[in-house]
Amino acid sequence: MPTGTNFRRAFADKRVLVTGGLGFIGSNLAHALVALGAKVTIVDSLIPEYGGNRRNLAGITGRLRVHVADVRDWPRLPSMVKGQDYLFNLAGQTSHMDSMSDPQADLDINCRAQLAILEACRQHNPGIRIVFASTRQIYGRPDYLPVDEGHPLRPVDVNGINKVAGESFHLLYSRVHGIRATALRLTNTIGPRMRIKDARQTFVGVWIRRLIEERPFEVWGGAQLRDFTYVDDAVEAFLLAASRREAEGEVFNLGGPRPVTLKQLAETLVEINGGGTFVVRKFPDDRKKIDIGDYYADDRLIGRKLGWRPRTSLREALGKTLAFYRQELPAYV
Amino acid sequence: MPTGTNFRRAFADKRVLVTGGLGFIGSNLAHALVALGAKVTIVDSLIPEYGGNRRNLAGITGRLRVHVADVRDWPRLPSMVKGQDYLFNLAGQTSHMDSMSDPQADLDINCRAQLAILEACRQHNPGIRIVFASTRQIYGRPDYLPVDEGHPLRPVDVNGINKVAGESFHLLYSRVHGIRATALRLTNTIGPRMRIKDARQTFVGVWIRRLIEERPFEVWGGAQLRDFTYVDDAVEAFLLAASRREAEGEVFNLGGPRPVTLKQLAETLVEINGGGTFVVRKFPDDRKKIDIGDYYADDRLIGRKLGWRPRTSLREALGKTLAFYRQELPAYV
Repeated sequence: MPTGTNFRRAFADKRVLVTGGLGFIGSNLAHALVALGAKVTIVDSLIPEYGGNRRNLAGITGRLRVHVADVRDWPRLPSMVKGQDYLFNLAGQTSHMDSMSDPQADLDINCRAQLAILEACRQHNPGIRIVFASTRQIYGRPDYLPVDEGHPLRPVDVNGINKVAGESFHLLYSRVHGIRATALRLTNTIGPRMRIKDARQTFVGVWIRRLIEERPFEVWGGAQLRDFTYVDDAVEAFLLAASRREAEGEVFNLGGPRPVTLKQLAETLVEINGGGTFVVRKFPDDRKKIDIGDYYADDRLIGRKLGWRPRTSLREALGKTLAFYRQELPAYV
Repeated sequence: MPTGTNFRRAFADKRVLVTGGLGFIGSNLAHALVALGAKVTIVDSLIPEYGGNRRNLAGITGRLRVHVADVRDWPRLPSMVKGQDYLFNLAGQTSHMDSMSDPQADLDINCRAQLAILEACRQHNPGIRIVFASTRQIYGRPDYLPVDEGHPLRPVDVNGINKVAGESFHLLYSRVHGIRATALRLTNTIGPRMRIKDARQTFVGVWIRRLIEERPFEVWGGAQLRDFTYVDDAVEAFLLAASRREAEGEVFNLGGPRPVTLKQLAETLVEINGGGTFVVRKFPDDRKKIDIGDYYADDRLIGRKLGWRPRTSLREALGKTLAFYRQELPAYV
């Protein structure tokens, strides 16, 4: 967990709001912020299909405030953002498939509520510093690899379209209204506290659950290249983005140490687990239509500007994640 | 007005819905469609700040149906789209400044309602053929000129961000759900029936109004290059896009015969009017922040694919527009 002196200077005794703070990355960020001495407030809707889980705050529950509230509930936004020094804006609908079957819910959370949050900041706390959780999904099917921040945005699903809008609003408010914001385009993030009930957040969650339950897991396709960021590294990127001037108004890719195919990932996971089986299946048709093919990020920009890099190897990331869920399975299924 | 045999074959006796049909381009399109023998239904909110004006249907009021309704009124959408052969989807908020002062209204119309319209089509009329009115605003400040369809989308205001989303939804529904749609990225369109009360739709409207009222008009900046499509040419592009297979799932720029600076435009207008004065003013600060600088379109793609080109010279376009408003001023101010 990142607890360096610079971070302590930036966050100790500071008021920090984390939307989606009971979710996977939000809760890991909350743990780091509490350890740094920040006064953390979490907003989370705890919608069952999303990533929020009260168990994610085990060990720090008494040391922060939690509001169970939906970012679509606009009247509550002004009081939430008032007086905050930082806003880590991670509330979002993450399932690509759900965005196709219920597109308006995705729009209301990932697009419309984002604008409402920014308007609340503009009217009630224009000095706030924001980091927004964007996604590599907005690139769509890559024209080239690795994908850098200049790659065209051509999202292939409703989720991607709404995330483009959500990110664009942040950058616009930063540029035009002076609400200092940074967007991080996350790739697959893995680690403790991710959703493992189903594949709504990441397919790796389901794989790990099934491995621990000693059932075979399914690999769809298998040849797709992907990169994976360990959650502690992602958390460090959020803290860097919030605390460094050079990050204001910027957008950065996060990547992983090295891309692997899904089949390689599955094999590595089985090996680290010391056993387990998987079956390779044809990509289902409805998912194929919105699949992005191979993807991995060029994350050198955040390396150059903020000194970030993914420190955790894939093996280490998978090992730590497996260890966590061997302990914690009942609280997450 | 385009009334060729091919258009007659495509549209005669066909059921055609035009959202924003009391507005500038929508009403010109309605005139053309009625002349082609189509069964036209118009949906328009008649919001006073927008482009709708009942006078725009003078001469054809008995020959089509008009629903005064807002596309944000979702429960009414299914009954509107059912049974229609074509949907010309032109309802939109067009003011860049209004999109900054009331961003949620812009989002609800240009982004959220568009998704609702497409969902209504998917559920109740998946065989419909759609043409969506997009805008060059989605490109933002051009990297190069002329701007082709491959230019990155980097909108500089809330309106541009929402129009990107609205256009993207159309192309996504075309690709994934088979709802055949085409998006036309309009540049400045001018001609009879445009809004001249203020600059919410186009600054040229205010210029013409003031000229006819024999008052000086204001040119902001003056050096910016722009292209102008005459509305009859734009209408032809909509009809082509709706009636040609090659246009399905595609996006096309519309352009004008040749770009001019705003100062040249002002001078030409004064000359054609046979008199009048204008003053050149510094760009207001709040507008400068969201200004896109020089813009003109590369419209060769629609030329190659559909044989469209802007036929009307700028002088002819301005002359016809002036002539219209000399007659019609009282109904438009």
